[in-house]
Amino acid sequence: MKKAVIVTIGDEILIGQVIDSNSAFIASELNKAGIQVYKIISIHDSREEIYKTLDEMIPAADVIIFTGGLGPTSDDITKPALAEYFNSDLVLHPEAMELLMAFLKKRNLELNDLNRNQALIPNKCNIIPNYSGTAMGMWFRNGGKNIISLPGVPFEMKEMVTNFIVPQLVSEYHLHAIIHKTIITSGLPESVMAVKIADWEKKLPGYIKLAYLPSPGILRLRLSTVSNGNSMVNEQLNTQVEYLKEIIGQVIVGFDNDTIESVVGKLLNLNSSSLSLAESCTGGNIARMVTSVPGSSIYFKGGIVAYSNEVKQGILKVQKQVLKDSGAVSEQTVTQMAEGCRLLFQTDYAVSVSGIAGPDGGTEEKPVGTVWIAATSNRATIARKFNFGDNRERNIHRASVAALNLLRLFILGMENEINIK
Amino acid sequence: MKKAVIVTIGDEILIGQVIDSNSAFIASELNKAGIQVYKIISIHDSREEIYKTLDEMIPAADVIIFTGGLGPTSDDITKPALAEYFNSDLVLHPEAMELLMAFLKKRNLELNDLNRNQALIPNKCNIIPNYSGTAMGMWFRNGGKNIISLPGVPFEMKEMVTNFIVPQLVSEYHLHAIIHKTIITSGLPESVMAVKIADWEKKLPGYIKLAYLPSPGILRLRLSTVSNGNSMVNEQLNTQVEYLKEIIGQVIVGFDNDTIESVVGKLLNLNSSSLSLAESCTGGNIARMVTSVPGSSIYFKGGIVAYSNEVKQGILKVQKQVLKDSGAVSEQTVTQMAEGCRLLFQTDYAVSVSGIAGPDGGTEEKPVGTVWIAATSNRATIARKFNFGDNRERNIHRASVAALNLLRLFILGMENEINIK
Repeated sequence: MKKAVIVTIGDEILIGQVIDSNSAFIASELNKAGIQVYKIISIHDSREEIYKTLDEMIPAADVIIFTGGLGPTSDDITKPALAEYFNSDLVLHPEAMELLMAFLKKRNLELNDLNRNQALIPNKCNIIPNYSGTAMGMWFRNGGKNIISLPGVPFEMKEMVTNFIVPQLVSEYHLHAIIHKTIITSGLPESVMAVKIADWEKKLPGYIKLAYLPSPGILRLRLSTVSNGNSMVNEQLNTQVEYLKEIIGQVIVGFDNDTIESVVGKLLNLNSSSLSLAESCTGGNIARMVTSVPGSSIYFKGGIVAYSNEVKQGILKVQKQVLKDSGAVSEQTVTQMAEGCRLLFQTDYAVSVSGIAGPDGGTEEKPVGTVWIAATSNRATIARKFNFGDNRERNIHRASVAALNLLRLFILGMENEINIK
Repeated sequence: MKKAVIVTIGDEILIGQVIDSNSAFIASELNKAGIQVYKIISIHDSREEIYKTLDEMIPAADVIIFTGGLGPTSDDITKPALAEYFNSDLVLHPEAMELLMAFLKKRNLELNDLNRNQALIPNKCNIIPNYSGTAMGMWFRNGGKNIISLPGVPFEMKEMVTNFIVPQLVSEYHLHAIIHKTIITSGLPESVMAVKIADWEKKLPGYIKLAYLPSPGILRLRLSTVSNGNSMVNEQLNTQVEYLKEIIGQVIVGFDNDTIESVVGKLLNLNSSSLSLAESCTGGNIARMVTSVPGSSIYFKGGIVAYSNEVKQGILKVQKQVLKDSGAVSEQTVTQMAEGCRLLFQTDYAVSVSGIAGPDGGTEEKPVGTVWIAATSNRATIARKFNFGDNRERNIHRASVAALNLLRLFILGMENEINIK
């Protein structure tokens, strides 16, 4: 199996100012193409570190992909370092110049001394065209190994990986793909899940590997195997998923690249139903999740971020007395928020959330992390109470996932069959 | 200077299913404490890889921090691997058991065979208490080197790093801290900025290093230096920032850990002003950014996600004729959205956004990425047109940043002094 190493270059990652999301994208694309990423490394903008990494990795890997350090400014040293390592001269590359001029023109920017240097390319590599920026990718071949250098700007890098690098590597190598099947669940903690599916796990065929991937509000179970070119393996994966459905069907939200927001979207589309949202403590996060799905404008009419009590009262028509007697974080308030929202937006479904995200605002009776969620339709209105904990960002995220999961169960008429947590 | 290496363990990172955000957090905390992170590595859940990494890194680094692979399930092998490497036996640890029981009780969960194993700890390490989960941290000392293993769940890991590991390392070593000063700008692309500040950059003292950190809508300039214990270095950093302010003052949004949303929040607080939002294509993302700031409920009243034209018309009172003649993405529509929003929520300021996020909905006249933004107060209403490009997620993000930046300039009365892009 062909092996790849991903190397990100940049002080900003090593001082923790920037999260390395590029490597995850590249790893996912290589993996799908059947190339195993066996290591991801982040190093400083330093010639010495770049040389040391090349010395170590060229014998160990088939493909080495660098990202970062190709900008026009003086702290970007990847290009001269690679040129020197491969005994190359930097020369003006006509195609790179053409792409650069086209890009600048599109953005109404002038050619200056700094960005002109972006068309200088080591003479011992091929360029990877960049249609969205000024830094071209570089592809060196050395003793049968592929050494590739890409800009660190995510969307520029992504275009090159998807449209150029992966197709090229796929046609150059010929390998069995790694197959994953991911089951996405919401509502059970990892240790409870592990006990519930222990018998099923024990009976898994040896060539199928199971991994638990917990994240706030969501637990993914990933089955992996290497395709041996016959369909049996794929069938076995599907059979195992069918067995699993019988055990934990109700907490399965979706599969593979599904998200809770895309699944809810599919359900609403299927029923030609519309949705509106009334958010307090989640502050627009649920709307952002729902609208991150392309095509969501078909079923999502809109939402209210009702951060203050005046808004809950004035726009969502929550009764003053209810806010006074039960408080903003209560069954009565979320119920009236959901019903007021559905009426205002004239939708089939409405979901409301009110809680204490923290860090302040908790009381003994209602500590930080207390969240009420309601869902309503012409069939009924339901409300549930959750306790998430004391981290603000996590509370907002978990409340958003729980609200969409409650809506999912409510649309399916299954809200009473399982006690989600 | 003490050197650290961060090692994440887990197939999920190497197949690109999960982005490694833990390393950035740890790197940032170590950096602030004056410990240099010189490498970040991700490896598979594999004993062989863990041993190889330890063999390589113990001679090279002073501190090695592992995250991941401490869960209760069978794919988690970090604990037995480290126990074996350091010739340790796994024994029941009374304090770990106590913490485990307290945690399970808080969550209404039962002790079972799986989570009971979480109290088994290698006898040659100290534990790092985990108050938010079942996996304790482990601290091995070997030949003067510190080898630390932490759970991969971000908030559990973070508590241990902040409250336990960093204070311990700070008291154990005694080093000069690395000082950073970051200037956050919005409105100028990297290549334009580089030319504008070229003279200033040339005159920087040799011990101050400059880095450009671009991200969608925001360009950060980071000055770094090593504190030599006297105040001169710190003063020089501040002096350089003052020089920079004279050149690019208007595009400076804030400093260090400021975000565009926290800066806008401070400005609103300073003026005792309130804000409401009317979002179309950003779908709640601006509200989510604004409410991510603790204490935002003081100035943020609420918002409308007006995804459909019915909502723009019915709730925000945009005239039917305007939507028909000029369309939802137009100066007239965002103007009426902002003014309708301000009236509805009774706030001092209101901001509105309407645009074509993509992937569909673009026309020749209004291609994907066209976004209109308006801001209004009792002083005036202003509207600006932007062209961001063809990536949905990036458009939503850049439109959100541009909207908050326009609001910032509008509050300062500076909206006509600079043409932000």
